[in-house]
Amino acid sequence: MLMGEEEVIELIKKELGLPRAFEDAELVPFGKTNLLVTTDMLNEGDDFPPGMPYEAIGWVSVAANLSDLAAVGAKPLGMLMAWGIPRILPFDGVREIAKGMRQCASAHGTRVLGGDMNETERITLSGTAVGWADVPLRRNGAKPGDIIAVTGPLGASAAGYLIYWSKKKDLSELERKLVERFNKPIARTALMHELAKKQLVHSAIDISDGLSPSIYSICKESNVGALIEYLGIPFFPGAEKYAEENGREPLSLANVGNDYEVLMTMPQESFGLACKLAKKHGCELSEIGTVLKKGVLLERDGKLGPFPKEGFAHFK
Amino acid sequence: MLMGEEEVIELIKKELGLPRAFEDAELVPFGKTNLLVTTDMLNEGDDFPPGMPYEAIGWVSVAANLSDLAAVGAKPLGMLMAWGIPRILPFDGVREIAKGMRQCASAHGTRVLGGDMNETERITLSGTAVGWADVPLRRNGAKPGDIIAVTGPLGASAAGYLIYWSKKKDLSELERKLVERFNKPIARTALMHELAKKQLVHSAIDISDGLSPSIYSICKESNVGALIEYLGIPFFPGAEKYAEENGREPLSLANVGNDYEVLMTMPQESFGLACKLAKKHGCELSEIGTVLKKGVLLERDGKLGPFPKEGFAHFK
Repeated sequence: MLMGEEEVIELIKKELGLPRAFEDAELVPFGKTNLLVTTDMLNEGDDFPPGMPYEAIGWVSVAANLSDLAAVGAKPLGMLMAWGIPRILPFDGVREIAKGMRQCASAHGTRVLGGDMNETERITLSGTAVGWADVPLRRNGAKPGDIIAVTGPLGASAAGYLIYWSKKKDLSELERKLVERFNKPIARTALMHELAKKQLVHSAIDISDGLSPSIYSICKESNVGALIEYLGIPFFPGAEKYAEENGREPLSLANVGNDYEVLMTMPQESFGLACKLAKKHGCELSEIGTVLKKGVLLERDGKLGPFPKEGFAHFK
Repeated sequence: MLMGEEEVIELIKKELGLPRAFEDAELVPFGKTNLLVTTDMLNEGDDFPPGMPYEAIGWVSVAANLSDLAAVGAKPLGMLMAWGIPRILPFDGVREIAKGMRQCASAHGTRVLGGDMNETERITLSGTAVGWADVPLRRNGAKPGDIIAVTGPLGASAAGYLIYWSKKKDLSELERKLVERFNKPIARTALMHELAKKQLVHSAIDISDGLSPSIYSICKESNVGALIEYLGIPFFPGAEKYAEENGREPLSLANVGNDYEVLMTMPQESFGLACKLAKKHGCELSEIGTVLKKGVLLERDGKLGPFPKEGFAHFK
């Protein structure tokens, strides 16, 4: 019997006796603080498109896990990486993957501490990140009237991912730039840990699976609605251009995922300081909407409609 | 270029800037104590032989990770599980795997807290276990004169594993018993946490990859030697019988791995109390030899020779 990803996860959660709620990282109260732990398995194909350099594969495998820690406001303590690699993977490939992992971990002030090694048909990198936070962020804290904000311009990584799959050879300068953003995403760990510590944010989620699923998840977990203003969405300028040139909706790019930015909600009065802190940490924070009591709406060209439901899911 | 598993791991460690030493779990000093984290990826085929029930697959995927925590004397705080499953895996299969995970975690006083879901060709379960220990055990503490001891009778799980691969249909009572031990290994977490806390043990390692690699690893990391007495090795009685009937060396069974018992060294004066504690936790502790200054030797039938080097490794 074939199942959708959500069905499979609901079944597993039920069997494991877990709450139905989805979070980016699991919380373990420990001493006077909390550990936050998360795992993310990435696979050749789905996550590493054809032609992606080995170093980028290493970088992304670490960034994907750190992005989950960012979403919960946790400061990273370290990472583990379980490798599944084909017997034919060249020596230099292994070296480049490890190099990319180290560079990414180091860029986020942390380290890959160890792992495990297995033989598989495709490259599979299953990472774990461990962090801590006195006041972790969750998806269920959004309140009507909150500002909805996102970090960083969106859509560039998705465009880069699609460029790999197009298998185009001679890339334009813009295309190279988009690919570069896909290859080296930055997880917002430092910013989010500070926002959590200062208790400026009500709820947060990483948008690795796309903007739309992230908005819907915050609304579901917090039992609220949302109004998103299209003009507020901070598309990466090149990404918008790429979308136009390839007959795509820019919004569909933001929904492809791989951006590893953070969607969050906060009271109006937090926004000014949050923007300053974002700048300090080298990224932009953009207001894209407001939390409502119910409904998930998009205002675009003066019209109001339901926010399109799309995003990345396995087993579709 | 093809590589052996050890070469691959050495290359990765070098690129990640990690120490050359191997441990069962990585140590993260945290507050006044230490976190111990470990990851273990298991795959259909290598780790889950044909015909293995889904429930056992779930159980073993959890036990393998907890066994690494046992080796370092850590008390489990929780687990994560990243699933890679084929699209064709039946609904009931998913349910049974999750059920096995829960039962195993629960039998060890812990829980699977969450995870990740992916589509893969074969079943891949990549687990992470997080625990803590004030005084963690390491592989490098063995001292000449220490007693070498192991928990539990050895070789039964390996025999069970080989029985699956023999694809034999009508199993004898003994064969069913051996398969049952392979299906439901117990990690020695509670015993080892207590031994570590009471500082009775100098060094420890789990013997998931076989007795021989574990002995050699303790000797290498501690820069010591070992003398193992064949008659001291606590073979599971049925396993010895199975080995004889199938033209195998019992010792080669203990070297197949999958036992998830613990090899440890301790001062002579610790052994009595350690045995009592083992009994309290429902297992047997057996003395199998002595730590020497150098050499890894086996005494058998009155003859002394090098301890045979064999065990499980990928990429052979």
